[in-house]
Order: sequence, then structure tokens, then C-alpha cells
Amino acid sequence: MYNFFSVKDVVNVYKIVKESLFLKKNPYSFKYIGKNKTIGLVFFNPSLRTRISCQKAAFNLGCNIWVLNVNKDSWNIEMNDGTVMKTTQEHLKEAISVMSLYCDILGVRTFPNLLNKNYDYEEIIFKKILRYSRVPVINLESATLHPLQSLADIITIAEHSSFFKKKCKVVLSWVPHIKPLPHSVVNSLIQWITKIKEIEFCITYPEQYDLHEKFIRDYKGKIYYNQNKALLNSDFVYAKNWSSCVVKYGKILCKDRKWMITKEKMKLTNKAKFMHCLPVRRNIVVEDSVLDSNDSIVLQQAENRIYASQIIFLKIFQSLL
Amino acid sequence: MYNFFSVKDVVNVYKIVKESLFLKKNPYSFKYIGKNKTIGLVFFNPSLRTRISCQKAAFNLGCNIWVLNVNKDSWNIEMNDGTVMKTTQEHLKEAISVMSLYCDILGVRTFPNLLNKNYDYEEIIFKKILRYSRVPVINLESATLHPLQSLADIITIAEHSSFFKKKCKVVLSWVPHIKPLPHSVVNSLIQWITKIKEIEFCITYPEQYDLHEKFIRDYKGKIYYNQNKALLNSDFVYAKNWSSCVVKYGKILCKDRKWMITKEKMKLTNKAKFMHCLPVRRNIVVEDSVLDSNDSIVLQQAENRIYASQIIFLKIFQSLL
Amino acid sequence: MYNFFSVKDVVNVYKIVKESLFLKKNPYSFKYIGKNKTIGLVFFNPSLRTRISCQKAAFNLGCNIWVLNVNKDSWNIEMNDGTVMKTTQEHLKEAISVMSLYCDILGVRTFPNLLNKNYDYEEIIFKKILRYSRVPVINLESATLHPLQSLADIITIAEHSSFFKKKCKVVLSWVPHIKPLPHSVVNSLIQWITKIKEIEFCITYPEQYDLHEKFIRDYKGKIYYNQNKALLNSDFVYAKNWSSCVVKYGKILCKDRKWMITKEKMKLTNKAKFMHCLPVRRNIVVEDSVLDSNDSIVLQQAENRIYASQIIFLKIFQSLL
Repeated sequence: MYNFFSVKDVVNVYKIVKESLFLKKNPYSFKYIGKNKTIGLVFFNPSLRTRISCQKAAFNLGCNIWVLNVNKDSWNIEMNDGTVMKTTQEHLKEAISVMSLYCDILGVRTFPNLLNKNYDYEEIIFKKILRYSRVPVINLESATLHPLQSLADIITIAEHSSFFKKKCKVVLSWVPHIKPLPHSVVNSLIQWITKIKEIEFCITYPEQYDLHEKFIRDYKGKIYYNQNKALLNSDFVYAKNWSSCVVKYGKILCKDRKWMITKEKMKLTNKAKFMHCLPVRRNIVVEDSVLDSNDSIVLQQAENRIYASQIIFLKIFQSLL
Repeated sequence: MYNFFSVKDVVNVYKIVKESLFLKKNPYSFKYIGKNKTIGLVFFNPSLRTRISCQKAAFNLGCNIWVLNVNKDSWNIEMNDGTVMKTTQEHLKEAISVMSLYCDILGVRTFPNLLNKNYDYEEIIFKKILRYSRVPVINLESATLHPLQSLADIITIAEHSSFFKKKCKVVLSWVPHIKPLPHSVVNSLIQWITKIKEIEFCITYPEQYDLHEKFIRDYKGKIYYNQNKALLNSDFVYAKNWSSCVVKYGKILCKDRKWMITKEKMKLTNKAKFMHCLPVRRNIVVEDSVLDSNDSIVLQQAENRIYASQIIFLKIFQSLL
Repeated sequence: MYNFFSVKDVVNVYKIVKESLFLKKNPYSFKYIGKNKTIGLVFFNPSLRTRISCQKAAFNLGCNIWVLNVNKDSWNIEMNDGTVMKTTQEHLKEAISVMSLYCDILGVRTFPNLLNKNYDYEEIIFKKILRYSRVPVINLESATLHPLQSLADIITIAEHSSFFKKKCKVVLSWVPHIKPLPHSVVNSLIQWITKIKEIEFCITYPEQYDLHEKFIRDYKGKIYYNQNKALLNSDFVYAKNWSSCVVKYGKILCKDRKWMITKEKMKLTNKAKFMHCLPVRRNIVVEDSVLDSNDSIVLQQAENRIYASQIIFLKIFQSLL
């Protein structure tokens, strides 16, 4: 592995999940490999889990790490080409190139503008970052993808299903939210989860919330506009809001609180585990009673972020040897 | 020691001061103990000394450390339970639980709202943090306490009194300030200093500045409304402002500049050392001439913050073995 | 070397450039020297390159490092003496003294106010910092100097001239900018480059942009008001804006876009390399086509910031042994 942009950079999802679980049991077993190595993390958008779980993963591998919050620790970055830079202080090209000279792996978080679908879905900015960097780049969330989150999610499902041996119906359910949110967690989840053949996967959302063709094209599972039907007999409920993609890009078209995950709805399931990538708005996305129950595994997902990052760092370090 | 919330978590104050002084002489003698350990620091309020002295203490112990400034590096945290989270992005429960999964010790700084005395003095928020964390928690200043500061203060007094053998009258004096300040440094100092029987301790403040019953209840020393009387024959003058606690919670009731510590007032003392926890507003709290004299030991207090943190980290690491 | 404030703290510029190039080839060869050492970096002004290149340099030397952004991670600092601190929270004296107690080397970035020439050029603030610190101080850019940048620049020129054996005419050219900028990079460059006798150095700028006498006094090279004449036969073009120094301190007196470095102008040179300290505003300071050509060595300059910092850290650590 050189860059880690999406699931496509992983040869075998089963194998990488297994290796992540090995790291969880033996976090320091590859500590020698990080010697004299440095990871740099650049955040164009704020972060809590990604940042700290990556720091912990780097510590586990015995390597150094620096973190930069762009626009807070430094200045405004120009994302477009050919502009006369009257209002921006440094171009993405110089910023990324330079930062990549100060580390062996560069992790970058960007974000969609949610205004121009093509611009976001072409991953214009992240493609530039991949081009500008002199070292391998890791996607810490881009305009349309969040692969480290999905890897952590799959690891968590593996842990709760005896490595996919137990029956495993996963429902991804749209839920309400206050602000228009990106599609990255959802797109990535579809990409990763469909690699695991043992998982019966379905998606449920209000009619106007169809996802982008690029990610749905190869999707062979069911789509329900009726949340209750989808939840029936499910073993995992993955709640996540997203803004409209196809109908009115980046807008909120439904605020129907009936889509919130409640204790009542969880009764339709097969004692399902509740999943969410966090941060989660309580009593908007999901009721307190669900999140506070023993069936919630959101913290386990968050913990597995460490090992998702660590296995990717490790794979890249190994490929550089 | 598991959590470190207040002096009550310390079995023997004399012993911990002695051990801190050993660390000051031999800062790297326990470096092996931090191997494969990570400390996380979370600041809900800004910090300079606490943050950097903890980083230095962690380096001395050979362990890894990450630092997060909430609301700057990340987002708005919901502190209340049961709310529909329309304006906050993540609940304290998820934030603390997750962060505790990424470290072996979690240090947290919170703050009082200075609006609701009971809420602050019940330490509602810090008690939640203690409950949510999966690992030991260290109080880096809470609504009503600042125990690492007090430990550093006691270490400093020990250094200047041949471990409390020399005569040792300590005066805590209220001083003016521009903004309403918390009571944490003062409450903690009372808790810690009264554990050292050799110290003659007294407090002086304007009439309306009585401290909270919880911290005064067991206090057997003198209280003076006349600053000059209190300063007579003192060996240490600890200056600190606090806002009203009992009369009008969180408000400023006195701005009398006569309470500022001056060179003239220091003449009333027994060539006393001047102490302050810093940051200090010059010529409001204390005159330049006092702070710039050889009798000021504020920098020594600040330096001892390293060893106060280090001994607490060490005690907790040892208890986890 | 104890402090590193300017080129005057370096005994032999040739030697330090040679040693930097050795470090570039053998970055980890002095890793033992950083054991149990801590570097602290304090930024009163934002930074990207300086911050991360210093972190990388510290990692290379095996030492610990902490970074503090003043006014972001902490609070407002009082720079003046004798004031009644109504609006500032901590005096520079306490801030610097305390921070210096938490590290073995303190790096500090300040800035000019660009309002009062004497105040800036007397380096009032940095002189205080040097006085207040208990440990060696490194200038990460002060009101009038940026010596780590200049050292990196000289290293870069050495690499492109077989250690100054190849013909080497360097032109420093004023270029347009949107905002009034400090003179620090320019002043430092003059100080350092004139130490290398093999370099033919000249400066070109619009008539009202004379530099400060202090830095021009000993300068024996040519000054051109005609940029084209200066560029003739040059081997390196160093572009940098500065605000007026002598005529109207800190103001912009010329916005003439004809001073921008273009592909056309580069044709006047001896296939010169293009240099800039970054960040650079594209199509204001320099045309895209120049920056994106193979003749641009701005990234190499940025990379050499690592070894410029590392050699200075190393020299100071060695002097402390």
C-alpha cells in the first residue's frame, strides 16, 4: 500500500480486519517499525476522534507525530489554481508539498463544500493533495469518503459476529439532523461493507435521499423507504444522517423526527447493536435510552479507530522498507 | 491512587512532597515506567503552565502525551443530560468516554460557571467526567479545586523551610482583580496546607469575601478582615483574588486597591516570600517591585508544577501495574 | 553557541552550512544527544514551516518538543513594563520565565508592530525574551530578523553551486504584495549572504524601498532601482516583498505589478533558480509558470529548514554538555 484513499487501496478486507484485531491484542508488537519515522496530520476541518486515535496509533508504532490545524495554527489556504491570490496566503500546492517534506506519511482531512456536487464527487481537492505530496497520503476524511471510519466499523462488526460467522444483517438508517452533513461516512460504509459477503446489508432513508450513483451503482442490497421494514430482524443498526445528494445537493429535505432511532424501534430488530460514527446529537439522531443501553457499541467503534489507523500506518511503513 | 481529584486522594501529604522533591533531583529515574503509556490532556479552558508542565512531566517519565483544546481543536460539548442537542455537537459522555479510550491517564481542566453556586460546588461536571472515563482521571482544575497547583505550592514552601522545620507562617491574602475569578486555587490551598501541622496558616480578605462553608468548616486557623494584622510576622504571603462566594456568588464586591500587595506591606512581614499561582496581573494584584524582588518565589512555584504532576502520574502508573 | 539570535552567534558560516549538509545525509546520527532534552516553541504569530520543521528537527535529534500558540492556546500577554494590567492577563516576564523552566531550549517567534521603527529595530521584545529566559533562546523570527530562514537559504544555494564553487550571482528582488510585510527575511538574508565571499550579491527595489541603515551599512554590493538590470546574468533570483522602511515605516508605497517575477523576466537571467521563503502569493509575487517550473527551488529551501534548525539545536545542546 502506498496511498490510502479508499477501500480500493486494500487488497483484502478480511485480511486487514484480522490484522487490525491482532494489533488490538498486541498493540506494541511492531514498535520497532516506527523508529525514525514521522507521521504528519493536517486538518482543514476540526477533529477529535481522528486526531487522537491517530496519535495513539502512532505512539503504538513507536513513531513521531505532529498535528496542524489549518486556519487555526496557520493561515488561509488557496485551493484553486491560476488565481491572483489577493485574499489567500498560501496555495495548497506549496502547503501540502512542504508539509510532506516534514514527514514520512501525511494524513489529511478535507471536507465537501456541499454546493457543487461534481466538484465534491470528483474529489478535486484530495486528488491535488495526492499529486502534491512527496510521501504517502492517508485520507482522514475527504469530500466523499471516510475510509478509516469504515474500517473501524467493520472491525467492530467482526468482533460482534465471531468474524462474520454469526448471522449479520446490518441496516444503515438515515436519521434527522440540524445541519446539512456530508455523505462521506455513508459512501465509505457502502464500499467497505459490501466487500464482506457474509453481511446482509440494506439501507433505509426518506424518498428524496438517494445516494450518489457512483456508490450505489454496484450496490446489490435492498433499499427501503420504510424504516420499520428495514429494521426487522436486523443485527446491527447503523444510524447516520446525510444531506440530500441527488435531488437537491447538500440541502436538508426532511426533518421528520419519526426517523430518529428510539427504544421502540429497536424492538423491531433482532436485539440489534446500535452503531454511529460519532459525534452524535442525542435525542435528534437517537434517543438517550438507546445510546445509554448495553446494545450501543459506539464506543467500541471509536476505540477501533486506533487499530484501523495503526494497521494502515503499518502497511504503508512496511511498503516503504 | 486511581483518580486524583483532591487532597483526599493522597494518603500522606508529607510523603508525596518528599517524593516530589526526589523527582526534582532525579527527574528521569522512573523513565522506564512510562514505556507504552499515554497521557491525554483535555482543556475546556485555556492553559499555559498546566499544559506545558504536564507535558514536561510526561517526557520525564518517558511516556507519550496528547493535548486537546475543546472548542478550539474540536467542537461544542453538551454538558447537560436529556437535552435535545440542537446547538451542541457532542455530549460530554461520548467525548470523555472516547478520549479515555485513547490514553492511560486522562487529565481534564474544566471551570465554574460562577452563576450557580450549588452546581459549581457539587462539581457536577467533574463528577460526570470521573464517571464517564474508562481510565484514571486527574483534576487539572475543576469548578472548585486546583490540587496540582496546591501540591506545587506546598513543595515550594517545603523547599524554603527545610521541610517545614523552619518557622513557617503562611498568609493567604485576597487581592483585587478586574474580572470575577474562581475559588479553586484558594479552596485547594486550604485543603492542602492544613494537612501540614507545622504551618501556621491564616487568611485575610474584605468582609464580604467569606469562603464556602465546605472548605472552611474544618479550618481552624485565623481569619482577618485587616490585611496588615494578618501580614505581621508572616514568612510567606500567598496573594490570590477570588470573587464573592457566600454573599453574592461569582460577583466582584470590592475593588479596593489598598488590598494590593506592595513593597510597603511586605515590610510588615518577617522578610516573607511572595507567592502567587500565576498568571498575575501586575500592579493590580501586586506591585512590580514585589514581583521583581528576590523575595518572590512565583517562578519556583511554577517550576514545581512539573514535579507535582510527575509524582501524581507516577503514583497512578504504579497503581496500575 | 548559547543563544541563537542572528548570524553573529555563528562563528563560521561555511562550517555550519557544511555541518547542516552532513545532517541532511545523516539525520539521525546525533540522536543520542537529545535524550532527556526538551525543546519548547512559543509562537506569538502563526507558523507552518517553522513549527513543523523544528518539530521534525527535534525528532531527528531524539528529543521531546512542545509547542504553544500564544493568544490561541493561552491568553493575552503584556509586552510593556510598569503598566497596570487591566487588559492583559500575563506579563511577558512571567510567561517567558516560566516556559523556559519547562524546556532546555526555548524557540520564540515574535513580530514587528510596523508602527514604530525604533521599537522594532531595537528588538525591544526579543531582548526582553533573551533576558527573561533561564535557558538558551532561538530566534524563530523576530521584529527584524529570521536567521533560521537565511541559514536554510544559504544551505540551498550551497547545494546548487557545488558549495559556492560554481559561479553564483544572487539577486534579491523586491516584489509586490497586498499587505505590509516585515523586513526580517530580507535583513537576515543580507547578513548571512554577505558572509559568503564567493557569492556576488545584489539587491533591487523601487526607489522608496531603501532598507534600514543598520543592515545596509556594511553592505558593499550593488543596489539597482531597475529590476531588469539586476536580473541580468543572475544565477539565483530571491523574490521577497517588504514594506517601506526608511521613507514611511511599515507602509506600502508601491503596488506596481511590473515588479512581479515572470517567466519573461527569468529569461534575462543565467537560467537562474527561483527562491522564496514561503508562504508565497501566486500571481502577485511571482507567476505560476515560474513557481511551477523546474527552476523553482522553494521546496528545497523549505526542506532545508529542518537541517537549519537541527544544526542550531545540536550546537546548543553540545555547548550545554
